Amino acid sequence: MERRNVGILGATGAVGQRFIQLLADHPWFNITWLAASDRSAGKTYAEACAWRLDTPLPERIANMVLQPNTPEAAGDSLPRIIFSSIDAPIAKELEPRFAAAGCAVISNSSAFRMGTDVPLVVPEVNFGHFEVLESQQTRKSSGGFLVTNPNCCAIGLVLPLAALQARFGIDKLFVATMQAVSGAGYPGVPSLDILGNVIPFIKNEEEKLQEEVGKLLGGVHLHGDAAIGFEAAPITVSAMCNRVPVLEGHTECVSVKLKTPANEAEILAAWAEFEPLAGKNPQSIFAGMHLPSAPAQPVAYEAGTTRPQPRLDLMRGNGMATTVGRLRPCTLFDWKFTLLSHNTVRGAAGAAILNAEILAVLGKFDFRKFPPVNSNASAAEGLVNA
Amino acid sequence: MERRNVGILGATGAVGQRFIQLLADHPWFNITWLAASDRSAGKTYAEACAWRLDTPLPERIANMVLQPNTPEAAGDSLPRIIFSSIDAPIAKELEPRFAAAGCAVISNSSAFRMGTDVPLVVPEVNFGHFEVLESQQTRKSSGGFLVTNPNCCAIGLVLPLAALQARFGIDKLFVATMQAVSGAGYPGVPSLDILGNVIPFIKNEEEKLQEEVGKLLGGVHLHGDAAIGFEAAPITVSAMCNRVPVLEGHTECVSVKLKTPANEAEILAAWAEFEPLAGKNPQSIFAGMHLPSAPAQPVAYEAGTTRPQPRLDLMRGNGMATTVGRLRPCTLFDWKFTLLSHNTVRGAAGAAILNAEILAVLGKFDFRKFPPVNSNASAAEGLVNA
Amino acid sequence: MERRNVGILGATGAVGQRFIQLLADHPWFNITWLAASDRSAGKTYAEACAWRLDTPLPERIANMVLQPNTPEAAGDSLPRIIFSSIDAPIAKELEPRFAAAGCAVISNSSAFRMGTDVPLVVPEVNFGHFEVLESQQTRKSSGGFLVTNPNCCAIGLVLPLAALQARFGIDKLFVATMQAVSGAGYPGVPSLDILGNVIPFIKNEEEKLQEEVGKLLGGVHLHGDAAIGFEAAPITVSAMCNRVPVLEGHTECVSVKLKTPANEAEILAAWAEFEPLAGKNPQSIFAGMHLPSAPAQPVAYEAGTTRPQPRLDLMRGNGMATTVGRLRPCTLFDWKFTLLSHNTVRGAAGAAILNAEILAVLGKFDFRKFPPVNSNASAAEGLVNA
Amino acid sequence: MERRNVGILGATGAVGQRFIQLLADHPWFNITWLAASDRSAGKTYAEACAWRLDTPLPERIANMVLQPNTPEAAGDSLPRIIFSSIDAPIAKELEPRFAAAGCAVISNSSAFRMGTDVPLVVPEVNFGHFEVLESQQTRKSSGGFLVTNPNCCAIGLVLPLAALQARFGIDKLFVATMQAVSGAGYPGVPSLDILGNVIPFIKNEEEKLQEEVGKLLGGVHLHGDAAIGFEAAPITVSAMCNRVPVLEGHTECVSVKLKTPANEAEILAAWAEFEPLAGKNPQSIFAGMHLPSAPAQPVAYEAGTTRPQPRLDLMRGNGMATTVGRLRPCTLFDWKFTLLSHNTVRGAAGAAILNAEILAVLGKFDFRKFPPVNSNASAAEGLVNA
Repeated sequence: MERRNVGILGATGAVGQRFIQLLADHPWFNITWLAASDRSAGKTYAEACAWRLDTPLPERIANMVLQPNTPEAAGDSLPRIIFSSIDAPIAKELEPRFAAAGCAVISNSSAFRMGTDVPLVVPEVNFGHFEVLESQQTRKSSGGFLVTNPNCCAIGLVLPLAALQARFGIDKLFVATMQAVSGAGYPGVPSLDILGNVIPFIKNEEEKLQEEVGKLLGGVHLHGDAAIGFEAAPITVSAMCNRVPVLEGHTECVSVKLKTPANEAEILAAWAEFEPLAGKNPQSIFAGMHLPSAPAQPVAYEAGTTRPQPRLDLMRGNGMATTVGRLRPCTLFDWKFTLLSHNTVRGAAGAAILNAEILAVLGKFDFRKFPPVNSNASAAEGLVNA
Repeated sequence: MERRNVGILGATGAVGQRFIQLLADHPWFNITWLAASDRSAGKTYAEACAWRLDTPLPERIANMVLQPNTPEAAGDSLPRIIFSSIDAPIAKELEPRFAAAGCAVISNSSAFRMGTDVPLVVPEVNFGHFEVLESQQTRKSSGGFLVTNPNCCAIGLVLPLAALQARFGIDKLFVATMQAVSGAGYPGVPSLDILGNVIPFIKNEEEKLQEEVGKLLGGVHLHGDAAIGFEAAPITVSAMCNRVPVLEGHTECVSVKLKTPANEAEILAAWAEFEPLAGKNPQSIFAGMHLPSAPAQPVAYEAGTTRPQPRLDLMRGNGMATTVGRLRPCTLFDWKFTLLSHNTVRGAAGAAILNAEILAVLGKFDFRKFPPVNSNASAAEGLVNA
Repeated sequence: MERRNVGILGATGAVGQRFIQLLADHPWFNITWLAASDRSAGKTYAEACAWRLDTPLPERIANMVLQPNTPEAAGDSLPRIIFSSIDAPIAKELEPRFAAAGCAVISNSSAFRMGTDVPLVVPEVNFGHFEVLESQQTRKSSGGFLVTNPNCCAIGLVLPLAALQARFGIDKLFVATMQAVSGAGYPGVPSLDILGNVIPFIKNEEEKLQEEVGKLLGGVHLHGDAAIGFEAAPITVSAMCNRVPVLEGHTECVSVKLKTPANEAEILAAWAEFEPLAGKNPQSIFAGMHLPSAPAQPVAYEAGTTRPQPRLDLMRGNGMATTVGRLRPCTLFDWKFTLLSHNTVRGAAGAAILNAEILAVLGKFDFRKFPPVNSNASAAEGLVNA
Repeated sequence: MERRNVGILGATGAVGQRFIQLLADHPWFNITWLAASDRSAGKTYAEACAWRLDTPLPERIANMVLQPNTPEAAGDSLPRIIFSSIDAPIAKELEPRFAAAGCAVISNSSAFRMGTDVPLVVPEVNFGHFEVLESQQTRKSSGGFLVTNPNCCAIGLVLPLAALQARFGIDKLFVATMQAVSGAGYPGVPSLDILGNVIPFIKNEEEKLQEEVGKLLGGVHLHGDAAIGFEAAPITVSAMCNRVPVLEGHTECVSVKLKTPANEAEILAAWAEFEPLAGKNPQSIFAGMHLPSAPAQPVAYEAGTTRPQPRLDLMRGNGMATTVGRLRPCTLFDWKFTLLSHNTVRGAAGAAILNAEILAVLGKFDFRKFPPVNSNASAAEGLVNA
């Protein structure tokens, strides 16, 4: 299969760097366009970016020239697939313009996550939600569309929850998080604020976590055969979010009230048998999919009494699995457990890339019936309901 | 007032060092006896102890010779007041022997906290529980007794809870903790385990927190006029305890369900008006007490959106206050808030010293009607119901 | 003695906050004027400043309104003594204007430290250098002048060096530093850069350390009786500066080649007998001075094999002493040792305050023979030779 | 090529775990024997070991039963190649017994490093020293021998030094280290001692660094054709060693005095052209060697002004390269630079494995002319001159 050309909006940021790291040798996608803010446009990537990952910046990327972040400026070089990781206020303005131009915008931004026709997807959990993108206005006119992945905390959480929801139903849950500093981007959290400290507040984080879980675990609203919107699952979530002096990896303490009681063995089985996208089960809805970034075991249970830990469990499934541990009864709800998820791999760039991989398999990147990409399309066509 | 002689069991440990630091210039107490394990007995304190506090080891203490940790070995030098901070299994054996010998044992150990005739006290919360010590067997024979303070997490938590319990009643609560490494003593947590990491498990900690809160917020069981036991408050607590790379200061995220609804202003008022031991209110049950270690404001609310933080709020009330912040509604229970407490000051040595101060005011150190201290008293007399 | 009114330039920065903390209850100085950048001017201090120290922001200061940072804007409220901690490029422009207006500018900035008529002073080491301020142009016209304290690393280093220089002479030295993040101000070092990491570079730091030591340990150039400039001591310094994940406290590893050989006892004696400003020796040049911020023992030797350490030794002499340890022979030069100094107390705000205290004792704040402060003085008069 | 059986002495320790991680899929070596202290012998590896690496413990190893750590106990299962990482006092007794039994002991212990007939080798630097093993007593009788790799700091340092020594000669050097906590093993450094702190002392570390560099950069002593001992290079080293809150990676600040002056370009060329073991240069003494663990570029220069950093540069050459940066002139010697080396990969287990790989290529594991391994050989034969 020929690799598809892709672009990255917000290429120099912390998540942008992860996109580059994870896409550098990707078998399906080929980075041909990198965009950054006006300040950086025109410089090479190496000049504009303080590369902060522990693998070397690929030579080819280092020499690419950063483009202005609009479809107009891209002209003919605009790739049809755009990964986006830009701040919500900018995303609000820019992402619809790329969709209007005919691009598939795979966004990590929070701007449109709760949009009424915008899929918010973790593929193992709710890839069926992608059908709603067909009802987006730009899809009909230009073929372009916009899909999103959840907040970094919600992704790690929703994997083990989906397994429980499927078998026992979830009524409500408490979640207390201890989040890594990389979640705040760069320069992000000043060291004077976090060295040997805890900050018990992350702006908008509790709200995002509380609303995104319901959409992710919910269903789609059908109109005839067409999926035209979402129905949130009636799960009440209470979140308490904290920043801790950890570099990568969000730890979350969960207590969950199920709809149907389940014993320890049943819970563990639900997680162990949770269907991976890379699975070999011929009965699986995922049979035949061989997604390069999909973990073989999306929910990995670690039985050691002191686990999971960022230092020991971060890279399970190449950073794409949620590690769960400490399953124990709760005096108030049913079960308590602790989970760990890599916040800039599974929780950001890797989530968007996995969305792109499954969109490819689902044929959503087949633009033959649509007009060619038009970088001058009217922004007005690009509206997505937020 | 002449300073009373006191001794310290477990003098070289992390909490033992805090005892020494906090008692060095204490107006009411005078350290005359320091005991340590057999390995250290006979050495000077300076020889045996790797002093790890950031104020200098007092010269006088440095030169004191460590004694074996039994009343028999102490002989005539046995002081009548003993602060104890030793591991639970050793405390189980040793503390009753000191009580049998006629000593007031003020213990920070967990060994006897849930004992049916052993007061577990945070003075601002339940100093009335001290009356139960009169029903201890050793009290009657030798005058000696044993009282305890709670687990380091429970102390910080119970101060704001007591204010809510008094006005609105508490039905149940969730608490997720982020605890400092000093709580594990020395050498305690290996740096390889905690640098840039979170450990989502602390042995027995969740259990302690879940059971101690009820006893602290409960009442005493009367037989005629005599307080002969405890009645736990019917509050269900669910705890999730974590270790984080913080040196001192336990942070706790709480969600509480009240019995009677209360609005934000009422909650804040309950905390602001929570009666300090050092208070000047002539109507207060604490009127006239001038306890040297009591904070003027036991529950200090910090309105900044990112507070409380160990780095900024640890030393409120000289480390004896609980700082509370982030009061906000909960989607599941009534109110969420975050608190911070100094785990080796208010949460350990300072808690025991404050217990000793109020015991002094209550006359419990008046041993005139009892026989003189007898370091050879039979250990069998020393039983305390655990 | 009536307290003198003082102002602070750069009041909201990290060092500005230390100035406020250390001056809040100062017996000699009274903060009456706080200035900040245009962006903050007009707001109250509490509004404009994210207070980041672990003692509460004093109520009176919280309510003070921040002034624009020019003498003109201050008008009649301009105090005659100005503490300054602003970035070098701004200091270069602003500090001479305050000196021209008749103010004593006590600066922590690096802008004028190497100026040919600007004293660079650590009082225990070279307070005689202050005489050179009399040759500054503004001193003659308005009475105003400018003095500086060294870089945070140089201050801690020069205290033990001065003791050795006085007795044995110093030929050359190596120094490798491990510096705290607070030295970079706020927001300063991003946590992503320093958590669990070392950054082996601090801009201009090695250069400052290499040039300031010679000026500090040198003498003054006399013209008749008048001190009109400085003669650097001919000491070659080689510095290697590193940032480490420590909050406060610069650690420095030193190897020194003396001019006259000295044995261990002689070195230790030189440090133990190094004359404090607060000393009681009637023969001392400091006799009779009772400077509130001066440490009783400027160079404190700590004999423990693993000392000094930021966590244990930071607050010696209320953060104003240098703690030295690990004196041992060097295979290349004569002696190696390690030192620790509090970089934002002794290394910044405390250094400037101590300079102000000794200037007060020396009568340099006696402006009776000079014209009244004139906030509209021409900037041209304010030139200081940089 | 058939994989050779190997054993590990000290298999459960921090370095032992690295041995297992790095040897698990090694193309040349096959772990068949794991030994631990008496306390652990008889348990499975998984039972006895708290695995602390961030890759999973291989299943096969987890189930292996730990053996007592003597050749006698091993009997017929004794492999002919033994990797050893045990404390020096135990190594002193045990390693010679394995050599006497006919084993090649590849040791990371410090016990015999300075032995007069014991090679201390970093292959890129002085693999010729291995010839001296032929003069060991055990070699002649049983074929067994003992070789060592240097201290973790010396290995990283000696790679860039060897390149300079070869071209310009080295006269003397200062080195100040900032060492990771993993260098102290497990449990190692208590978190209370190192969180937000620097410890300016590591036992015996400065001494090791000062003496090992000379032996590594020196030559062999010939008697006829036979290499019978070592001649240390006359280089004076002064070391100042510190522990910092970093997990993995030792950073070292170096100032070096060369024998022949060299300019910046010449220094950089010396490093860039330093011959790798994996090199493709047919003229190289290493031509034809294809050592699996050898880095393609043993000395990697990183031009960024703030480099090298543990967080960014640790894994160069799979953790087997030294990253060098900040080359700049020194005011005292000739050149200053900073280096970083992975202390438990290149600095310990990886160093020993690379020694084993080159020993294999050199034919030192060809035991055909020697008697079979004899686990009951007299310990007296096992003496190695320490």
